[in-house]
Formats: sequence, structure tokens, C-alpha cells
Amino acid sequence: MTDTHKPPLIYLEDLSVGDVFVSKTHALDAAQIIAFASQFDPQPFHLDPDAARDTLFQGLAASGWHTAALTMKLLVESFPVARGVIGAGAEVIWPQPTRPDDVVKVTSTVLSITPSRSKPDRAIVVVESVTSNQRDEALQKLTSKVVVFRRS
Amino acid sequence: MTDTHKPPLIYLEDLSVGDVFVSKTHALDAAQIIAFASQFDPQPFHLDPDAARDTLFQGLAASGWHTAALTMKLLVESFPVARGVIGAGAEVIWPQPTRPDDVVKVTSTVLSITPSRSKPDRAIVVVESVTSNQRDEALQKLTSKVVVFRRS
Repeated sequence: MTDTHKPPLIYLEDLSVGDVFVSKTHALDAAQIIAFASQFDPQPFHLDPDAARDTLFQGLAASGWHTAALTMKLLVESFPVARGVIGAGAEVIWPQPTRPDDVVKVTSTVLSITPSRSKPDRAIVVVESVTSNQRDEALQKLTSKVVVFRRS
Repeated sequence: MTDTHKPPLIYLEDLSVGDVFVSKTHALDAAQIIAFASQFDPQPFHLDPDAARDTLFQGLAASGWHTAALTMKLLVESFPVARGVIGAGAEVIWPQPTRPDDVVKVTSTVLSITPSRSKPDRAIVVVESVTSNQRDEALQKLTSKVVVFRRS
């Protein structure tokens, strides 16, 4: 059965600089934040709302790597590159913490397209993905280099 | 009860450019790779060893964000900054995929220390953390800006 809501796969011929892709939303909560942090970033401000109050974060905040991982989840759905979303590298900044009641979404913009010199079937596409909450506050800016293949 | 194996908390006075911190190891396996990918990066090369064979990765590989999250886990233990390891931003590259049988560790080097002009109690410390496997192959290079406070 075909999922008719799934966007078509993206090939190089489909992309232009300035193209924008908006993801679905993901509703975060304290339990998700604590579960991720317990496994990967066990620090008081990511684990315990009480202990978090007296830290730089002044309250429970998601690990930046949790925000990054959620961004990837939303990006894979909203920017479905043929043969997969494969990043060679990325830059990430976190302008403000992600909080337990945040409903996040990812808005991705194509910044540049550089065809490979050695491999004519592909290009490196630089994509800026801004992860924002329900108040349109930017929580993370991710700039990643993604390999995109030609259809032909 | 005090855990005598825990390294002491790091303050700004303790750090010099060139200091190196080596983490414990973490043994990965296919189940961990698939569990992370199911939640955050559901692509065939991260989910299914058979499907992964015909992809760019030529076999099951961890999500880059899984490698990043594991790096944070190992970094928090091996570079225990007082008041927490809090990153303002980071650059990450993945020179080669992390595989199911990899035993990873993180080697962190202090690249620079820049005292804050406006807040004399802290500095921005740039740390390069190389995540490598049991064959000393670099899987990830992470350069992050971390806030470190003075003891006094």
C-alpha cells in the first residue's frame, strides 16, 4: 500500500538554491528529555527539574544533542533525499534551550549546490535547518552538507 | 558515598591549551544502532543490515547523531566541567561510519581559551573531541565551544 502523504524522493534536478522544506511538528515533554539525557547526557539540568533550577538553564532543558537528533527525525521526513539523507559534516548552534513543553518543527533552506568534480552523478548541497518551537523561537541552527544524487 | 573513581571537577584555572582528556570506552552493537535510528534517524542503512548492504554505507552504520550522542556521554565523564558541560555551538564531521562492533572512545584536546570580556568569571574554551574505535580510526571530529567557570 502506498502512503500517499509521503513526499516524493528528492533528486539533484529537483533542487534550487533558496528552496524551503518545512517539517511536521514533534511535541516534546519532560519524560523524553530525561530519557535521552539518562542515556547520553546525564547532567542535572537535563535530568531533574528541581536540580535544574539552580543551573545556568534555570529549569529543565533538553540536551543539545537531543534537539539535534529530533531535528534529524523531522528532516528525514521533510527533506527525503533519494538514497538517503547522508551528511558529511555539520555546524550546529543552540541560541536557546529546548524546553519540556516545546513543540518543535524544522525549516530547511537550500543554501548552495556544488556539483562534485570527480563524481558527476552527485553534488554537495548545503542545507540550513532551523529548529523552532511553537512561539517561532529558534532553538537550533544546523548547517549540514548533504550528498544529493542526480535522477538520471 | 563518594565515588573515588570520579575525576575532580574542572575549573578554568585547571586548563591549559594542549591539555588532553581521554574517556572510557563504550561498546556499540547492532541493537543500540537500530534503537537510536528507529527513534531519530529511521533510514535503511541505520535500521536493517540487509537493506544497508546496497547503500553508500555498504552495511549497517550508526546515525552520525548517535555517534555524537555517545561522544557526549563519554565527554561528560572524561571532561567534567564544574557547573556542567554546556556547549554554545559545535562543528562535527564524520570521516567514516561507526559500525556495530566498534568500541568507541573520545580523546579531547583544549585548542583555545578565551576569557569572556563581559563576564570575568568565565571563558569560552574550544575543545576538539575525536571519537575513535578500537583500531584508532577516527569516526567523528567534534569541535565545540564550552563555557568554563573560574574556581574563585
